[in-house]
Amino acid sequence: MQTLRAIIEDARKRKIAIGHFNISEISGLKAIFEAAKNVGAPVIIGVSEGEREFLGVENAVSLVRNLRESFSYPIFLNADHTYSLEKVKEAALLGYDSIIFDGAKLSLEENIKATKEAVEIARNINPEIIVEGELGYIGSSSALLTEVPKGAQITKEDLTNVADAVRFVTETGIDLFSPAVGNIHGMLIGAPNPALDISHIKEIAGAVSIPLVLHGGSGLKDEEFVAAAQSGMAIIHINTEIRLAWRQGLERVLKEKPNEVAPYKLLAYSIEEMKKVVEARLKLFSGF
Amino acid sequence: MQTLRAIIEDARKRKIAIGHFNISEISGLKAIFEAAKNVGAPVIIGVSEGEREFLGVENAVSLVRNLRESFSYPIFLNADHTYSLEKVKEAALLGYDSIIFDGAKLSLEENIKATKEAVEIARNINPEIIVEGELGYIGSSSALLTEVPKGAQITKEDLTNVADAVRFVTETGIDLFSPAVGNIHGMLIGAPNPALDISHIKEIAGAVSIPLVLHGGSGLKDEEFVAAAQSGMAIIHINTEIRLAWRQGLERVLKEKPNEVAPYKLLAYSIEEMKKVVEARLKLFSGF
Repeated sequence: MQTLRAIIEDARKRKIAIGHFNISEISGLKAIFEAAKNVGAPVIIGVSEGEREFLGVENAVSLVRNLRESFSYPIFLNADHTYSLEKVKEAALLGYDSIIFDGAKLSLEENIKATKEAVEIARNINPEIIVEGELGYIGSSSALLTEVPKGAQITKEDLTNVADAVRFVTETGIDLFSPAVGNIHGMLIGAPNPALDISHIKEIAGAVSIPLVLHGGSGLKDEEFVAAAQSGMAIIHINTEIRLAWRQGLERVLKEKPNEVAPYKLLAYSIEEMKKVVEARLKLFSGF
Repeated sequence: MQTLRAIIEDARKRKIAIGHFNISEISGLKAIFEAAKNVGAPVIIGVSEGEREFLGVENAVSLVRNLRESFSYPIFLNADHTYSLEKVKEAALLGYDSIIFDGAKLSLEENIKATKEAVEIARNINPEIIVEGELGYIGSSSALLTEVPKGAQITKEDLTNVADAVRFVTETGIDLFSPAVGNIHGMLIGAPNPALDISHIKEIAGAVSIPLVLHGGSGLKDEEFVAAAQSGMAIIHINTEIRLAWRQGLERVLKEKPNEVAPYKLLAYSIEEMKKVVEARLKLFSGF
């Protein structure tokens, strides 16, 4: 099996993107894995600090590893948005394949210092681990939103500055870089999310030497995903869309089956809804 | 930490019962574990064939083992109602602490033969494993029921015969025995479940040399649990009640939080409901 590093490098060369989907419980993992197998694409499972606390930081490793080994399938585990060096260390020690250190709310100087430290801590534990850094705040909640997250840097002059990006990537030594390019976490209710600045993605991709990652993919248009992947986004994150599908599946079955109480029979409906979302996204990302 | 065998033997001597609760996903496990810790009681997690197929046969082992090792807590994993020798072997190889071979629908002769074989297969793989056998059909679905399951042996003359029980236990070599004593799987809608025949439990407990297990605890009266434990039931199974609590927690939060989509935030309500059930049951079973 190819390593995650090789898979990312391959995606970047082919101008496609790997799908990154978040979970906090078992039905999400099942849906994502089944969808990935159907499409035939490698996949990254993400767990934020809140998600992995609920699921169990160590359980996440067991669950993904059991799948990877039982099916010899390229499914990987990412410690999404990790805010402390302590939690970077924890994830690296437990065997996460990649870690995102999120210093996007820090000043440039502080962010460089902390991210560099995160890279060192993680690599000392596992030289093969992949570390991602973030520059530019895009909100922090994969939720249904009534407005753009406060402080999110989405206007042209607020997007991650190219010179800052080059300095950030060079000085921190990260493997993957996530800039603010018009994307936000979460999905606006009753309105499309702000559009991505594709030319800005291209500019950053041309200036830095490493693959880019697009957070906050939920709610974007199909053509934006394709353009983002072609412009240098080698990984695309989807969370809110599958969370919504999880809820909608449950709402439907609770209405349709008033006397069914077995969680696994009820969650089958959520899996069905999530699978549709993940399959559609993975096909787009993979250029199918 | 005491072994499961020692804990069961201890419960039997003290005339209390260990709680056995089923799961098919992560929130159930969290609720049961938190409740057990609160009460300070050892606990057994059960997964039926359907439940473990959904959760992942191997994942169940990882999840329970991670808890047991991280917290040094006596939490164990049981392969509930296993119908084939192949699945007995699978569970033993994967490290399940105990296995129930369910031949209750077979004739006495066939049941003895198959159960004996299950014991041999499991012990050859793991000499410490605990194997339970069943004699007397009590239904097979932990669901809300409109009527007593067809064929369930709940009338006095249908209950597990004492002489048969002695023969079954002796010839199979099982560690735990589950007789039909008026109990059924599932919970009747709008009516109490049939009453346990406590004197029959006492009779069987007095005649066989091993601890008894009560299946289908959901829907019984508090005093029945206490009497069952005092009469020789060293393990009591609860499933339908926590399944119902899972559903009710979700129904409540979906109404209260129309825009919340994060599964782990929604499932927090199910956990709250399930914890109440498990805590109350564990207190009763433990004689608190």
